[in-house]
Amino acid sequence: MPERLGPPRETPLFDRVALVGLGLIGSSIARAVRHLNLARTLVAIDGNEAVVARVRELGIADEATADVAAGVKDADFVILCVPVGACGAVAEAMKAGLKPGCIVSDVGSVKASVIAQVQPHLPKGVQFVPAHPVAGTEHSGPDAGFATLFFNRWCILTPPDGTDEAATERVRDFWQAMGSKVEVMTAQHHDLVLAITSHVPHLIAYNIVGTAADLETVTQSEVIKFSAGGFRDFTRIAASDPTMWRDVFLHNKEAVLEMLGRLNEDIALLARAIRWGEGDKLHDLFTRTRAIRRGIISEGQETAEPDFGRRREGQ
Amino acid sequence: MPERLGPPRETPLFDRVALVGLGLIGSSIARAVRHLNLARTLVAIDGNEAVVARVRELGIADEATADVAAGVKDADFVILCVPVGACGAVAEAMKAGLKPGCIVSDVGSVKASVIAQVQPHLPKGVQFVPAHPVAGTEHSGPDAGFATLFFNRWCILTPPDGTDEAATERVRDFWQAMGSKVEVMTAQHHDLVLAITSHVPHLIAYNIVGTAADLETVTQSEVIKFSAGGFRDFTRIAASDPTMWRDVFLHNKEAVLEMLGRLNEDIALLARAIRWGEGDKLHDLFTRTRAIRRGIISEGQETAEPDFGRRREGQ
Repeated sequence: MPERLGPPRETPLFDRVALVGLGLIGSSIARAVRHLNLARTLVAIDGNEAVVARVRELGIADEATADVAAGVKDADFVILCVPVGACGAVAEAMKAGLKPGCIVSDVGSVKASVIAQVQPHLPKGVQFVPAHPVAGTEHSGPDAGFATLFFNRWCILTPPDGTDEAATERVRDFWQAMGSKVEVMTAQHHDLVLAITSHVPHLIAYNIVGTAADLETVTQSEVIKFSAGGFRDFTRIAASDPTMWRDVFLHNKEAVLEMLGRLNEDIALLARAIRWGEGDKLHDLFTRTRAIRRGIISEGQETAEPDFGRRREGQ
Repeated sequence: MPERLGPPRETPLFDRVALVGLGLIGSSIARAVRHLNLARTLVAIDGNEAVVARVRELGIADEATADVAAGVKDADFVILCVPVGACGAVAEAMKAGLKPGCIVSDVGSVKASVIAQVQPHLPKGVQFVPAHPVAGTEHSGPDAGFATLFFNRWCILTPPDGTDEAATERVRDFWQAMGSKVEVMTAQHHDLVLAITSHVPHLIAYNIVGTAADLETVTQSEVIKFSAGGFRDFTRIAASDPTMWRDVFLHNKEAVLEMLGRLNEDIALLARAIRWGEGDKLHDLFTRTRAIRRGIISEGQETAEPDFGRRREGQ
């Protein structure tokens, strides 16, 4: 697959890139950076020694360490790839190592909170360009990453007021080099948009899977056996990393609760339509929603194959 | 793919099989019946003349007609593959043509209502064995079907009291021949189980896609662009056939509303945990839900590939 990313660059975009956190996202960036030659030297930093050891085994970075202040030393680009709730502590731990002119970025699914946590710790002369690649799978850890994860996916940048435009452009170039499309917006708008396109869908999926597991009238075995009726689709995102998602909800509280309120209003209307047998209302909605999927497919964000192109053997 | 279904039978299971409704499910049965030689003669019946013409073009049945009473004449096995709300009218229309000893079945996603609609119309000597293959895609119509749709999927039979056991066994043989696993339960229990594994997930998906489309603070273009954060998963089942799903909700009202009530209680607890910053509660749930997906994968009802094994090119 990596051939779709194109050949390695002759000249790297950055001299020394440090990734903090080598989970799905961090290790995917590492693989893409190596494949595309985006850094002269790539440093992998992870507080978990087992992850550091695994990164060395996988050979996806030039250097690997558990010491964040030492790891970011002399880097000209540092990307935090840790759960949103850990960004403040990591920023504090690394600040002594940051050199002037360094660009710091992140990949968090929430942006206003990350800015509030990270910015106070950054020394003068360091630029902060928060980023959110809207891409992922339900798998976690350094083995789950792959170089094409960001290919043809959007990456949203939310530079705070006062950020150097040249820094934002360098971060844009970095993500575009990995195949991403880049959009710039405010952190506040990002958090609202992602609440509906990502956070609330995850919350709903976690909720429905949890409710199904707890029913006293339907066994867990029945839920599993007959899940192909639609339920199994929800279990994919409900299998995502628990720590990452706990932090997303705690750090995007207002937007998530606001969007959840909207959903609840609409579901109450649907329940009423079912109770009173208002078939036309149901049919109208179900016709309208088909068009949204067609939009997603034609924008290139989804496969047109039926059933996500799931392999049927063994299923 | 059809090779996985095995070679055609030397002796057909039935002499004359009539399918009423050649959408995704009916046309998939037709293809499997032909591939496996499950019927000496296969008759396709559809009230829509355009579908009858298309079935002739596709060559997936021996005979095709829009006349249901004529089509079922002399059949020893008739399967209704129409939306749940149409079953009563179809049963009434075909009753004059049914021969004694004929077995009637269906594929509806709701069972108690179908029994109530169909049974009063069936002549003495005709056996009714309701069935529900828990399989499908979001595509509709005679071109969407394929012979392996039911392979390794469950099919639930809900024979009413008094049904001849031999008839139930013949229907079981039929589905097993197409690669399905078969379970027998009451119609009432079926409707409760499917409410949580299929009907409510569809309702929630339709709801979230509808709500997202109607927001005034987030544009439809943003919803589409950033859908890879989780939202796009929901759009698949929210692209399912509107008429089929309208009928499911109208005909399984009580169980759907009951399960929706459960979900609402649980989501209120989750919202409270978010509001009050109770991260442990969130983390516990998110860890528990991962186990359910592992169960679905190990039961063979889901692919273990990340992201459903979606193709990434063009995405």
